[in-house]
Amino acid sequence: MRLLTEESIEKIAIGAAVLGTGGGGDPYVGKLLAKQAIKKYGPVKLISIEELEDDALVVPVSGMGAPTITIEKLLSEVELTAPLEKMEELLNKKVDVIIPIEIGGINSLMPIAVAAQKGLPILDADAMGRAFPEAQMVTFYLAGYKSSPVTMADEKGNTVVIYPKDGIWAERLARTLTIEMGGSSSVSDYALSGKQVKSAVVENTLTIAENIGKTLMENRSNAQVGINKMLEDLKGYKLFEGKIVDIKRELKGGFTRGHAYFKGINEYTGDYTILFQNEHLIAKKDDEILCTTPDLIAVLDLETGIPITTERMKYGSRVVVVAFPCNYQWRSEKGLEVAGPKYFGYEVDYVPVEKIQGK
Amino acid sequence: MRLLTEESIEKIAIGAAVLGTGGGGDPYVGKLLAKQAIKKYGPVKLISIEELEDDALVVPVSGMGAPTITIEKLLSEVELTAPLEKMEELLNKKVDVIIPIEIGGINSLMPIAVAAQKGLPILDADAMGRAFPEAQMVTFYLAGYKSSPVTMADEKGNTVVIYPKDGIWAERLARTLTIEMGGSSSVSDYALSGKQVKSAVVENTLTIAENIGKTLMENRSNAQVGINKMLEDLKGYKLFEGKIVDIKRELKGGFTRGHAYFKGINEYTGDYTILFQNEHLIAKKDDEILCTTPDLIAVLDLETGIPITTERMKYGSRVVVVAFPCNYQWRSEKGLEVAGPKYFGYEVDYVPVEKIQGK
Repeated sequence: MRLLTEESIEKIAIGAAVLGTGGGGDPYVGKLLAKQAIKKYGPVKLISIEELEDDALVVPVSGMGAPTITIEKLLSEVELTAPLEKMEELLNKKVDVIIPIEIGGINSLMPIAVAAQKGLPILDADAMGRAFPEAQMVTFYLAGYKSSPVTMADEKGNTVVIYPKDGIWAERLARTLTIEMGGSSSVSDYALSGKQVKSAVVENTLTIAENIGKTLMENRSNAQVGINKMLEDLKGYKLFEGKIVDIKRELKGGFTRGHAYFKGINEYTGDYTILFQNEHLIAKKDDEILCTTPDLIAVLDLETGIPITTERMKYGSRVVVVAFPCNYQWRSEKGLEVAGPKYFGYEVDYVPVEKIQGK
Repeated sequence: MRLLTEESIEKIAIGAAVLGTGGGGDPYVGKLLAKQAIKKYGPVKLISIEELEDDALVVPVSGMGAPTITIEKLLSEVELTAPLEKMEELLNKKVDVIIPIEIGGINSLMPIAVAAQKGLPILDADAMGRAFPEAQMVTFYLAGYKSSPVTMADEKGNTVVIYPKDGIWAERLARTLTIEMGGSSSVSDYALSGKQVKSAVVENTLTIAENIGKTLMENRSNAQVGINKMLEDLKGYKLFEGKIVDIKRELKGGFTRGHAYFKGINEYTGDYTILFQNEHLIAKKDDEILCTTPDLIAVLDLETGIPITTERMKYGSRVVVVAFPCNYQWRSEKGLEVAGPKYFGYEVDYVPVEKIQGK
């Protein structure tokens, strides 16, 4: 057990923007939420999965919606805790531990804000090991756990409980409600026991995010050193350095979807593309695949090494694009069915990034 | 108290198609549901509001969605009772009495099927005195009662509970879910005490529907006699006789919206139009208004006197169009704000039908 302070939040926000490039909202908004909450309610206990009791009630909280909207619609305190409180009411049991559903975007930081507000510990783990755009893209779903009941709230004062037929219907119904609620909502689902969580979680991911943030922040003035250290720590790869020459972005079905186009710079020549749906999903050089989902693609500022989310990519930015292997659970048949390139509509076979880059 | 039998259902189905011309689905589908349930579980007790205990728990059940879809997607037994059972679970109390939320369409008959299945009595009353297309268009809303919690189910096995901020949000969130669920769902809301129900209900409406059905069925071979007797009983008006020359219908926002165009026949000359949104909302001769919502407009087959719902109007049909004054609660300022012509986007002032027709 250790305490997450305002300083930890600064680092986690940066790490979260590397591991999740859009998912569930902009990490810089999450940072404000989490720092405000710690200032008001005090530091948050971070516990490891070794410290988690088998019979503890563990509940994730997350934001749903297009990051574009979350940036403008800072979540209210009521919206933050309402899904958790509704879950306690439904299960007639107090929540013992909060867990981020994903690492990346606002969803690593918002649960810290909720934990501070409720005086609860947060687990050093998540259910993706990165960020993904849809609710069923979690290791809990791969392991066969039920997402039901799903509790949701908006900032207007509406609360909804969904008892979905399965994880896919949880996503469909929660997504359509989120759109009707104005484009963003807060959600709790997969209320599980400590024992269940231990069987299907990705470990230490808040600490990993914090370490990434520490490495990049300490090397701001010499970004290449920081980036290389991070790639070494996480067994990642540099895909290319480039300048953003065009971005096509649209809000569709509750997601921000689009393409970013790059021109290679320094020793990198040729044209590069990143396809995204909240998260960066595919990186290409001309027609050659460099990395695909479920492996992770992140875009960093070339000068500072600070990650740039899908929302904040701008024409003219000079960037480094990096990639990391995903957690092994995503490389199973079911994992690829749920979050591989074909699920997102790309007619591309998945090849592990270390195979592509190792050539 | 008296018993509703399969024979009563035949009559109520016809009366329901006069009082609600589309609302919540086609009454002929409702007839199948209610008759099946009575055959299987036995007749249903119909109780008057004098027989209703003040502390009884009274819960409406209804179908939501475009009639076009409900016709094709006959509700399953699970979908029928799931919202009621979820309501009992939430309130930790058994439902004592079922009430139709509206008279008209499937929604007068589906609650009878549920009552049969659950062995519960049904109240001889409803919360509209007719049918309307949106969830907040109920006398319970006019009286200031809360619709929350709203329970919903679909035939796939999804159940949802909404705790809406207000009646308008109940409609918005339930409607968007219904569309995502495939276009139809079953709903319970406004779980009220007997005392609350008595203060804001429209009385005797199942009996009124049954009497309309009886009158029209007995006079099938001489429709004019039946129609005239019905108009006399309900203080209604014949607007015109005509032939349907065109129908424009579209599925939009979960409703069937459109126009029906008529050419006057017999002693009626000129061109007539009915504007509908699930229900017939406005009848016009050229540009002259003959009747507007919240007063009731119904279309009957000229030869048989049997009502024709918005869904079943066909090119070439020869029809009689009639109108009835609505319940007084709809003529209040709030009533007109909620269900008057302006709410539906028609720039028309409401004038009571007896004023227009009395001239």
